[in-house]
Amino acid sequence: MTDAPPTVSLDEIRDLARHLPPPDLEAGTAARLRERELTKPPGALGRLEEIAYWVACWQGRTPPQLRHPRTAVFAGNHGIAAAHPVSAFPVAVTTQMVANFQAGGAAVNQLCAVADSDLRVYELDLDHPTADFSQGPAMTEEGCARAIAYGMMAVEPGLDIIALGEMGIGNTTSAAALATALFGGAAADWVGPGTGVDDAGIALKCRLIAEGLAVNAEALTDPFSVLRCLGGYELAAIVGAILAARMGRVPVLLDGYACTVAASVLYALDPKAIDHCLVAHVSAEPGHRRLLDRLGREALFNLGMRLGEASGAALAITLVKGAVACHADMATFAEAGVSGKDG
Amino acid sequence: MTDAPPTVSLDEIRDLARHLPPPDLEAGTAARLRERELTKPPGALGRLEEIAYWVACWQGRTPPQLRHPRTAVFAGNHGIAAAHPVSAFPVAVTTQMVANFQAGGAAVNQLCAVADSDLRVYELDLDHPTADFSQGPAMTEEGCARAIAYGMMAVEPGLDIIALGEMGIGNTTSAAALATALFGGAAADWVGPGTGVDDAGIALKCRLIAEGLAVNAEALTDPFSVLRCLGGYELAAIVGAILAARMGRVPVLLDGYACTVAASVLYALDPKAIDHCLVAHVSAEPGHRRLLDRLGREALFNLGMRLGEASGAALAITLVKGAVACHADMATFAEAGVSGKDG
Repeated sequence: MTDAPPTVSLDEIRDLARHLPPPDLEAGTAARLRERELTKPPGALGRLEEIAYWVACWQGRTPPQLRHPRTAVFAGNHGIAAAHPVSAFPVAVTTQMVANFQAGGAAVNQLCAVADSDLRVYELDLDHPTADFSQGPAMTEEGCARAIAYGMMAVEPGLDIIALGEMGIGNTTSAAALATALFGGAAADWVGPGTGVDDAGIALKCRLIAEGLAVNAEALTDPFSVLRCLGGYELAAIVGAILAARMGRVPVLLDGYACTVAASVLYALDPKAIDHCLVAHVSAEPGHRRLLDRLGREALFNLGMRLGEASGAALAITLVKGAVACHADMATFAEAGVSGKDG
Repeated sequence: MTDAPPTVSLDEIRDLARHLPPPDLEAGTAARLRERELTKPPGALGRLEEIAYWVACWQGRTPPQLRHPRTAVFAGNHGIAAAHPVSAFPVAVTTQMVANFQAGGAAVNQLCAVADSDLRVYELDLDHPTADFSQGPAMTEEGCARAIAYGMMAVEPGLDIIALGEMGIGNTTSAAALATALFGGAAADWVGPGTGVDDAGIALKCRLIAEGLAVNAEALTDPFSVLRCLGGYELAAIVGAILAARMGRVPVLLDGYACTVAASVLYALDPKAIDHCLVAHVSAEPGHRRLLDRLGREALFNLGMRLGEASGAALAITLVKGAVACHADMATFAEAGVSGKDG
């Protein structure tokens, strides 16, 4: 973390998460009224109409607009990956990929260029990984709170939407541990190949998660404690960005498995806490589908992606742009002189 | 049709459709080789990798590029709709919506703006609808051939992809008739609410299709005869655009139900004839899902859209742009100094 975030305690963040602003239903109603006047059969744009309504509600603006999208990628390192071969890639790849983001060479750079989105990459103290969660808490209270506060800084005035994602070798193990602790079931229900480990790697991930749940059992008293004991700095930062986006009236696009698990920390606290978030896509990481079912969410698309780094969320920006453009800029029946239904 | 297309007979078009160029597998192989060097776990971009390969094969170019997309909307009027209440909207809406396209007020205009696609609208003699297909052939041999040839003119040198769609009050009835004749089953299997008719309207559509199949039975000797007897000018034009795109090495994005049915005319002649086409989305019109299963195709997304006018295909352009941008512009492991898998 290069800039010092404001000092805040985990208890203050817990309190913040319990007092989140609701959607602006007045803006939503105005959007619904406009929608029915547009030159198309009622409902013919399907989910694009729902997306436009959702953006209006969470921006608190009608018509909604989508001129300034941001994509934020949070990068962190994991003690679990430093101590055990849970990833097909060495831990050094987290730092190497951050350099790749900064040089413009990663997938997310190209997808942001297509979406005309700015891209910010937030490094969370990559030289100091979290502790190995199979031995004890991954983060201190202070470290977890600092990472959340750091994530909050990604949300700045003037953004129309923020697409969130992560980079962290080993973080599907951390994500699966979080999901198991938050939603129950066996670790095997939430573990998958991540970047491409084999069956032995998957078995190792399951064993480490079981150990982590056992060793941290007494400390897992609420969703934020679960995040602290089993999560990672980049996942905590995503929690912070989601909270700040809610406060700042910025709708959120969530990327794949690890990112959606981070959002689930807030869902576990209060299901309404992530109503300003849309899940961009269904990841090929098998736990993601299970998680979406658990959250009652339908992703925007399923293209079999499993890269992380906000790639799916960045790709989804243009779908939301399309929805908002239709809603805001189409002619009404009256303006265009088009006959209505059964007219 | 404002410009006179070159004179061509339906037999000449049949012959053309039997001699279509294959994919450029050399470009495809080069794409596969590059793909495995890019800074991501193998396969992690999922279907985006397949799309980049597909564009390379059909453009015959490596890396593929997507700088000049076009969206083409073909508009035609249907005798079946002039004679029977098969649509929730009056026939005049076809012409009114063409004016709306030209004024920039329709959904497809906004979606083309987001995709940075040019938009061309082709009117097929809107003052002279096809004949009522429940009474006899919808088109003459000459009229059908002229519409196909007109559609071919939408493919011009320099295009990197073309998104196809249609506007024609009543054309889901014509599309369902085509699907029934091409693939069998009952008319009810292929009929849906279109722009929003009720159960009585659906029953009427089914009855008219049964009558159309009976009255034209002797003439339905091959897929092009089916198109001539039961189709529409705008659907014939889509067939022409697909053929010209194949000849011109321009990949195609197909929109919803009516558009995919038009492509099915070529599929029925030779399943390989539409290998250069991707289906953009699954329409909410129920026959579309059945048709995709019959064609063995998986659409790129399903957002419950059912508007036509190339809206889904135009929205899909940015997904293909994302796929091509990742493939063409990402750094390789060597360039970025990123460690490989199990490295």
